[in-house]
Amino acid sequence: MNSEIRKNRMAEATVTVLKTDNTPLVNQEVVIAQTKQQFLFGTAAFDLVPFTNGEYNGEKLEQAKKRAEKLLALFNAATLPFYWARFEPQRGKPMTVQVQNAAKWCIDHYLLTKGHPLCWHTLTADWLLSMSNEEILQAQIARIKRDVSDFRGLIDMWDVVNEAVIMPIFDKYDNGITRLCKEMGRINLIKAMFEAARVENPAAILLLNDFDISPAYDILVEGCLEAGIKIDVIGIQSHMHQGYWGVEKTLMVLDHFSRFNLPIHFTETTLVSGHLMPPEIVDLNDYQVEEWPSTLEGEERQAHEAIQHYSTLFAHPLVEGITWWDMSDGGWLNAPAGLIRKDGSSKPAYDEILKLVKGEWWISPTELLTDSNGKINFTGFLGEYELTHEGRHQTFSLSKENAVEIEVHI
Amino acid sequence: MNSEIRKNRMAEATVTVLKTDNTPLVNQEVVIAQTKQQFLFGTAAFDLVPFTNGEYNGEKLEQAKKRAEKLLALFNAATLPFYWARFEPQRGKPMTVQVQNAAKWCIDHYLLTKGHPLCWHTLTADWLLSMSNEEILQAQIARIKRDVSDFRGLIDMWDVVNEAVIMPIFDKYDNGITRLCKEMGRINLIKAMFEAARVENPAAILLLNDFDISPAYDILVEGCLEAGIKIDVIGIQSHMHQGYWGVEKTLMVLDHFSRFNLPIHFTETTLVSGHLMPPEIVDLNDYQVEEWPSTLEGEERQAHEAIQHYSTLFAHPLVEGITWWDMSDGGWLNAPAGLIRKDGSSKPAYDEILKLVKGEWWISPTELLTDSNGKINFTGFLGEYELTHEGRHQTFSLSKENAVEIEVHI
Repeated sequence: MNSEIRKNRMAEATVTVLKTDNTPLVNQEVVIAQTKQQFLFGTAAFDLVPFTNGEYNGEKLEQAKKRAEKLLALFNAATLPFYWARFEPQRGKPMTVQVQNAAKWCIDHYLLTKGHPLCWHTLTADWLLSMSNEEILQAQIARIKRDVSDFRGLIDMWDVVNEAVIMPIFDKYDNGITRLCKEMGRINLIKAMFEAARVENPAAILLLNDFDISPAYDILVEGCLEAGIKIDVIGIQSHMHQGYWGVEKTLMVLDHFSRFNLPIHFTETTLVSGHLMPPEIVDLNDYQVEEWPSTLEGEERQAHEAIQHYSTLFAHPLVEGITWWDMSDGGWLNAPAGLIRKDGSSKPAYDEILKLVKGEWWISPTELLTDSNGKINFTGFLGEYELTHEGRHQTFSLSKENAVEIEVHI
Repeated sequence: MNSEIRKNRMAEATVTVLKTDNTPLVNQEVVIAQTKQQFLFGTAAFDLVPFTNGEYNGEKLEQAKKRAEKLLALFNAATLPFYWARFEPQRGKPMTVQVQNAAKWCIDHYLLTKGHPLCWHTLTADWLLSMSNEEILQAQIARIKRDVSDFRGLIDMWDVVNEAVIMPIFDKYDNGITRLCKEMGRINLIKAMFEAARVENPAAILLLNDFDISPAYDILVEGCLEAGIKIDVIGIQSHMHQGYWGVEKTLMVLDHFSRFNLPIHFTETTLVSGHLMPPEIVDLNDYQVEEWPSTLEGEERQAHEAIQHYSTLFAHPLVEGITWWDMSDGGWLNAPAGLIRKDGSSKPAYDEILKLVKGEWWISPTELLTDSNGKINFTGFLGEYELTHEGRHQTFSLSKENAVEIEVHI
């Protein structure tokens, strides 16, 4: 195993197993099993909204169930959709209940949830166009406050502002958020949006998210921090429809953002298993094809690249999450971007990531013997564990902070 | 004339001409002549250092004199060189006196002076390489303080930090300033450098200067302003060795930087009169050719483009200066970038810019008749004027502020 993964993702602990009377459990066999990874292995999970709201029937429902099973087998985090144009197509009639149902399902299934996005020029509400900039600002802030409040406890992690680098100069079509950002400036807009989210959920993890990995984005982060905006996590998209970045470029990007010493999430990771999008396409949305098949060769490449990408990111001390985008083929751009084919079968990339996430990077149930003081030495991935002895269970957490000494009462 | 030029560069005033006894000069002919343009038409004038320090002899001296004449005929501002590697090749032995001589010559010849640059990774002092980052920071600050102080009154305008966007990721060769910027971050480095310059010359005009015209640079400006850095003027390079930007791109760049409502200088403007540098060259310094001739066709193109570029910038309300780079052929990159050929003759671009700057955009001596109250109505370009009556002269300024009423005592 990569020594950086060992250093950054694992901890060595002495677990003292105590009986209910507080005396050590001496020279006994116990089983330790990981139940949760601290690192977030997530996926875009928009499909969960129709699934959890009874919108699928018959064969479609069966397929959705299978997708959900595969999701739960691999991932511990899910990104849910808050695109304003779709979330609130008619002003005052948001899809709050439907998305809440999806979020509840996630929580019931031990998935950490994230909402994406609260403020973005693309797919923003059309009905902003008839407003003044001041009205747009108030509507956008009100939207953030409402949704962050409505989902507190269900979703405590948000992509607050999406793609601010291009936001004020986005020129594909007129929209309220570009107008607003052009007038306010990026930093002031970000400040207003973060403040609105923070006030409704002070404990939430708030991200700035962008596909731009040029100096423009790291300079924007620097400017936001200088302006006193509390960014909890830097979100970096990596839609690699035009080809895998490779390890070198990935490390360069990480290097540019590491100087802030803030956690980094790879929020939207795409590797296609078909032909690559031509390099001359600048805005990925411009590439509209009817058919974009997944191929045998493409699937092998995707699997190989996914291993490399996940291994590079999992090894980096500041990266705390990777979100795959989308889980199944046929989503955004009709791209063969999924880990699951349209027929519901797993691609090699799914199997390979699973081997890492629930294999190489996971502590399967392991028998250990306590010593004469009831102690066991144990090295594991940061996360949650269950210790079992004679049918009794006790959970404990393994973090860098508590790595040296853990007491378990059983 | 472009209505924007009229609106942004001219003022209409009523000049009341009073005699020494404070009574109006009634129904008399006076002559008004412009003596100075407020807008800065400048040029890189590094050649003035050897010229004013007696380093030229014989034919070279004659050529330099002719260049100086042409410079003075066209320009009202000069940029003088402070590249650290050349200014202080041996630590503690700066070329202060030599550059002071050039600055004095400029002032004696009514040229506004600017120093370029105080902090830049390229052409920085080699001897920084043996230092710790803390020592580099102290040396860089001390350098700024020393030079800004030594030149106070001779040079009161500075490119303080040059090319900060690429500074921390510049990877052509190791240098002290890239190391420092990588550690400090761009905004903190800029803040330290501006503070050092400001403290030694509070009245100085301090520029941030960059060739980057992507969102990275305007985001950096926004971040600096949010961090409380007082940038007096935004400097934008426009080295168009690979072809004229055209009006549309120029306006787009202006649009991106106008939202700060700060003055803008086009600090380094190049249009070549030979073949264009191939578009695939990213760092202009990579294009090394032995011969890069000025051609007849190229000179026509250069002249045409220079008219367009100067007209676009002169019309924009926030642009306050344009600096040509270099005045004569054979300077940086051996490019045919000059307005003057190697043999000292003027290219069409020189003549065309001159026609604008001292023709269309200049008030030549004009006879006017005072009315029965001693008043004349007068529309001119913002700047300095001389009013003459029967051999007696009086100067006055025309600015937007005093445009309505001016009193002249003669």
